[in-house]
Amino acid sequence: MNTEKSLYQALSAYGGSDFYPCHMPGHKRSSLSGEMADFYKIDITEIEGFDNLHQAEGILLAAQERANRLYGADETFFLINGSTCGALAAVMTSTKPGDQILMARNCHKSVYHAAILQGLCVHYYCPKMIEEYDICDGVDFREIGRLLDQYPDCATVVITSPTYEGVVSDVAEIANVVHERGKILIVDEAHGAHLGLCGTGAYSYEKKGAVAQGADLVIHSLHKTLPSMTQTALLHVNGDRIDRVKLRKYLSMFQSSSPSYVLMASMDSCMRYLERQGRERFTAMETHYRAFCQKTQGLRHIRIGKIGDVPEKKYAFTDWDMGKAVISVKGTNITGKELCGILREEYHLELEMAAQTYALAMMTLMDEAQGWQRLADALIEIDARIKESANGRTGSGFACKKAGLTMAQAFHSPREEAALEEAAGRISADFITPYPPGIPLAAPGELIDGELIAIIKDQIEAGLCVQGITPEGRIGVVVEIPEKIWHD
Amino acid sequence: MNTEKSLYQALSAYGGSDFYPCHMPGHKRSSLSGEMADFYKIDITEIEGFDNLHQAEGILLAAQERANRLYGADETFFLINGSTCGALAAVMTSTKPGDQILMARNCHKSVYHAAILQGLCVHYYCPKMIEEYDICDGVDFREIGRLLDQYPDCATVVITSPTYEGVVSDVAEIANVVHERGKILIVDEAHGAHLGLCGTGAYSYEKKGAVAQGADLVIHSLHKTLPSMTQTALLHVNGDRIDRVKLRKYLSMFQSSSPSYVLMASMDSCMRYLERQGRERFTAMETHYRAFCQKTQGLRHIRIGKIGDVPEKKYAFTDWDMGKAVISVKGTNITGKELCGILREEYHLELEMAAQTYALAMMTLMDEAQGWQRLADALIEIDARIKESANGRTGSGFACKKAGLTMAQAFHSPREEAALEEAAGRISADFITPYPPGIPLAAPGELIDGELIAIIKDQIEAGLCVQGITPEGRIGVVVEIPEKIWHD
Repeated sequence: MNTEKSLYQALSAYGGSDFYPCHMPGHKRSSLSGEMADFYKIDITEIEGFDNLHQAEGILLAAQERANRLYGADETFFLINGSTCGALAAVMTSTKPGDQILMARNCHKSVYHAAILQGLCVHYYCPKMIEEYDICDGVDFREIGRLLDQYPDCATVVITSPTYEGVVSDVAEIANVVHERGKILIVDEAHGAHLGLCGTGAYSYEKKGAVAQGADLVIHSLHKTLPSMTQTALLHVNGDRIDRVKLRKYLSMFQSSSPSYVLMASMDSCMRYLERQGRERFTAMETHYRAFCQKTQGLRHIRIGKIGDVPEKKYAFTDWDMGKAVISVKGTNITGKELCGILREEYHLELEMAAQTYALAMMTLMDEAQGWQRLADALIEIDARIKESANGRTGSGFACKKAGLTMAQAFHSPREEAALEEAAGRISADFITPYPPGIPLAAPGELIDGELIAIIKDQIEAGLCVQGITPEGRIGVVVEIPEKIWHD
Repeated sequence: MNTEKSLYQALSAYGGSDFYPCHMPGHKRSSLSGEMADFYKIDITEIEGFDNLHQAEGILLAAQERANRLYGADETFFLINGSTCGALAAVMTSTKPGDQILMARNCHKSVYHAAILQGLCVHYYCPKMIEEYDICDGVDFREIGRLLDQYPDCATVVITSPTYEGVVSDVAEIANVVHERGKILIVDEAHGAHLGLCGTGAYSYEKKGAVAQGADLVIHSLHKTLPSMTQTALLHVNGDRIDRVKLRKYLSMFQSSSPSYVLMASMDSCMRYLERQGRERFTAMETHYRAFCQKTQGLRHIRIGKIGDVPEKKYAFTDWDMGKAVISVKGTNITGKELCGILREEYHLELEMAAQTYALAMMTLMDEAQGWQRLADALIEIDARIKESANGRTGSGFACKKAGLTMAQAFHSPREEAALEEAAGRISADFITPYPPGIPLAAPGELIDGELIAIIKDQIEAGLCVQGITPEGRIGVVVEIPEKIWHD
């Protein structure tokens, strides 16, 4: 990368190239019929007539109410610091310092960060792996009920559905077991803002979203699956379990006091676009998706997770999301990363991400038939070139050896670095996270043992990016073990 | 406001009008020679070749290093959640939960929020008022030294310089007294990103910025006084008092994991513009400013804070900022709000803000002579129409009656609402803040007494907006007084 080129020039050159984006953001470079352009002209501050996001009473309140009507929540907030600030505000509003919480281990890091900021004692729901794809299964509501009975002091449950990979859980059943026990359910639906927006006549997008299924707080990224600018999101509130006064306070803490009108205008335009053209676009998307499924039906080596392709009883997830194609090359002679490289270099298709045995394509209502077609054609050609092989791995699972410290306690303890090989018996000060998929192998306060070290070394040897390890192979550990403050 | 118009349409209409912006953002609607346009094309995610803000190694690292060279700090970070996230990260990196801190009472609310999140025990530096203008004086370094000797457990000092109104403090002397005592100095220089960027030949902008004056952490809004999009900011680190590992962790907590490339490109373009044309533009700005001062010299009633207009020995501040014109109508027959209304309706000049006895115009290097001229001409005409009168008030000062609770303790305590008149003796659960200028009269954990109630009622009667009071005149109070955890 020539660093003399300005970021704008580099982005412009890329935006003008023939590379096709099978990745976020969901607007796929379309400025909604040219409506949104010349942004410096519309980038203003809170002057007369333009309201204030942190105390909305005028045009911004109306825009948020429009979003609210679309989703049918009790109240909806525009977020200009992404789902990140929504998750922070949701978790912190639903807990007090030192509270216990039940969260899925595959939650976004912002949920972990909230646990640090609030000094929470965390219990985990560890999803199983879907072996065919090496990705996390959905959340089993029965297991959530069991864990809440085991840890009755948990006030709040946080899960992610759909996952980054498009695995959808049964939020309605989960909400039932959580509410039966008088607890709060937060659903990080960052990857599912499109779910439930259209409800008739088509099969995939009529799956209800978490708002309609009764979650108390739902977080939606708008840029991921809908045509809105990156860093825009929504937070929805339902019912009376949530202290809205406190929620507003936290939202004002975690968002700039100078929110971008460009981002807010983008959200408003996105909502209006969905009102006007959403149904038509989602119907077209379904047509493209059906054609894609049909075309790729005959693949011999590559396997794609498709709607309806849910092994009965074996897994907890209810379905796949039409907008995410998990393209598995498990058991072939190429890796997911190699698949991505071929798609990029030979076909100018840029995918959302690559893991060891799969790659992920992200398609939205803004993709036309031609984009789906290019992806299908490329996969058919590649499938003909590759062959069966021993390549493949099962997920290494979750280590998660708790050591009696909260994340916050470890986070605030004096920290030093140690060679990974010599760290057995120490307590992690940091997150150690293979990325993708971004699920921590270790969180602050967890025990580092031989098994964990072996898993980490295995991932590094497999060429995966592991965050939380220096290039020299050192990790952050707590200097001295402070007094344990809780026991699991 | 017709809520049927989309936010984009409303903003576009305003951007295309002849209203002149004497307010933020500093780019004044200029897209830097048309460079930045068609933003959906450049709004991407962290794909190959475009780096990752949260672990910058390529084009984003280079862009941040460019900003760093411009300011001469040891390390510089791009912020896409405004100065808000910079202040949160700075304060939290410099403290541990439960620490004591010394902060100026006129700090931005994000500093208060950090105190809540970290459970800090706060000691205040309460600035005096500049009586001629009813605004806060700068920070007296001697008083900072005295307070640090009185509260030696404070690890960190946080001040704002320049203030929103352009009052500049002697940061070098303050850094001295803080560092002599082994403490950390954080300067919220959100309103002074332009200070110190050009150093020769002109008088006002050669005042050094807080980075050069030795602060450990400096926060710069880019959109306020420089040509960058709203919500963009920088955080600079100097020296070895700051734990940079922890700083990076907090920055990744308080910023979206999907940072906007549009915002980042805007920051990069701003830095390149300053490198290329900054000196020339600041020289032109000085010429315009001098002409403005000359033209408005003969005003009889309106008084404008101007460079060099610093009463010796009476106040702590060292100078005014050329980019902020505090336009006082104290002692005349109109209010600051009325002045703003006249400027808006009769002259189509939109000011940055209006207070009771003054209004604030914000001018940047992007304003041409014509903008300054329009403002001067309008003020001369208005000055001829108004007359002396009893109108005027001295600042009501700071109430700040501590009640033995930390902000966090009050924040997390059960809360109820009470009529303002009946709240004497209760402890505030919320911030009660006249806006502008946004300095809390009461913070969570502070005692509400008759004097405070009188001040609040006085402000409401004067027509000021007081945040933290319902339209029915009720305020949030702590239900029961929890055990006091510290004594001042």
